[in-house]
Amino acid sequence: MTNNIVKALTFDVFGTVVDYRSTIISEGERLNRAKGLHVDWAQFADTWRARYRPSMDRVMRGELPWTNLDSLHRLSLDELLKEFKIDDQFTEDEKDHLNRVWHRLQPWPDAIPGLTHLRKRFILATLSNGNMALLVNMARYSALPWDCILSAELVQAYKPDPRAYQMAVNLLGLQNHEVMMVAAHQEDLRAAQAQGMQAAFVPRPLERGPHNMPDLTPDPSFEVMATDFMDLARQLGT
Amino acid sequence: MTNNIVKALTFDVFGTVVDYRSTIISEGERLNRAKGLHVDWAQFADTWRARYRPSMDRVMRGELPWTNLDSLHRLSLDELLKEFKIDDQFTEDEKDHLNRVWHRLQPWPDAIPGLTHLRKRFILATLSNGNMALLVNMARYSALPWDCILSAELVQAYKPDPRAYQMAVNLLGLQNHEVMMVAAHQEDLRAAQAQGMQAAFVPRPLERGPHNMPDLTPDPSFEVMATDFMDLARQLGT
Repeated sequence: MTNNIVKALTFDVFGTVVDYRSTIISEGERLNRAKGLHVDWAQFADTWRARYRPSMDRVMRGELPWTNLDSLHRLSLDELLKEFKIDDQFTEDEKDHLNRVWHRLQPWPDAIPGLTHLRKRFILATLSNGNMALLVNMARYSALPWDCILSAELVQAYKPDPRAYQMAVNLLGLQNHEVMMVAAHQEDLRAAQAQGMQAAFVPRPLERGPHNMPDLTPDPSFEVMATDFMDLARQLGT
Repeated sequence: MTNNIVKALTFDVFGTVVDYRSTIISEGERLNRAKGLHVDWAQFADTWRARYRPSMDRVMRGELPWTNLDSLHRLSLDELLKEFKIDDQFTEDEKDHLNRVWHRLQPWPDAIPGLTHLRKRFILATLSNGNMALLVNMARYSALPWDCILSAELVQAYKPDPRAYQMAVNLLGLQNHEVMMVAAHQEDLRAAQAQGMQAAFVPRPLERGPHNMPDLTPDPSFEVMATDFMDLARQLGT
């Protein structure tokens, strides 16, 4: 059985563990009130996130040298502030603080109770494209109970590059099939499986907001399909 | 003041946070009873530890390819078992378990309460020559409250190589002077200071046993000298 072999769970973070969209909207709406702005922060959040994959792809194609996610987020933020015509409303310190909203993302409601259960039996590590400092700060801010922070930054190769998954397995000192990737994104899971890892799909239908449902088609090749982290803990016998 | 600048503390682990000697003696004496052996486990522990630095030096001189600490410990263990004439008393699984005593080291009595206080204010990371899996397993086994596990393994360069210290500063996203190295070993602290980090010396007079006092001469260049981790927390204002 899967859950007798698995020794560690590696987690995608953005969208899987934390709800970036709601956090950005919530912080943005506070900025609207504080600064008398009228920004549609749902649109802002969606546009910011839409530049995430293309910006990492530029790095992986070699069009940019290695650039960590804080810096990629900042490049996109600077474009967005101009496009939303609010660039002149923010000091440099305020822009830096807004960019670090990604360090302050709130977990989905089931995330911390689920992780707390899972941690009794499994090593819990991040395996995220977020840089180490971002993930460390987020874990402190949102009290995420990781045993270990692992990031694509450690091998300077963004998921779904195979090196990111292999790095996690190697650093945890385990065999590939002893590590299960947990993600709300099928591409991430398929890339992990291609490296011999196991896969747990935890769909997050609200990740992109109520009107933009992601692909939730079940893929029978995933070892586990769970409705949330509490269900994942139950299915893995913790 | 130091404690207003410092944002993260990086900790040497073996000897500084955990008492490897007592743990090895304690596990060894259980093996004596279980197997009817008469090994002097204090001598065994001291000899094992004495091969630690020379084995890393072989890697850093290029006489060995990169070899993580679990594997270096195992090379030394295999020699020691022969020298103590007990090689035939252990199965391969038992040797592997004994080698992993370094994953089960017990903290000094002040370590967990001190770290728990310090964590309220500072990011706490390991910065150890132990490999990542060793440090993750030890943190779980002994409930060490790290925010982040960092290891010389991440840059394949053992302390006091400058790359190990620079790696920690870079991955934490901080400036060098914002990170304070905490160690019971002056060489480690001097190497951190040479990289612009701050230094807190926490002597562990019993690290090598009651009859082998390490060099505890105060060095006035260290920013903090503390008697234990609780004292360190007090001095840093937590």
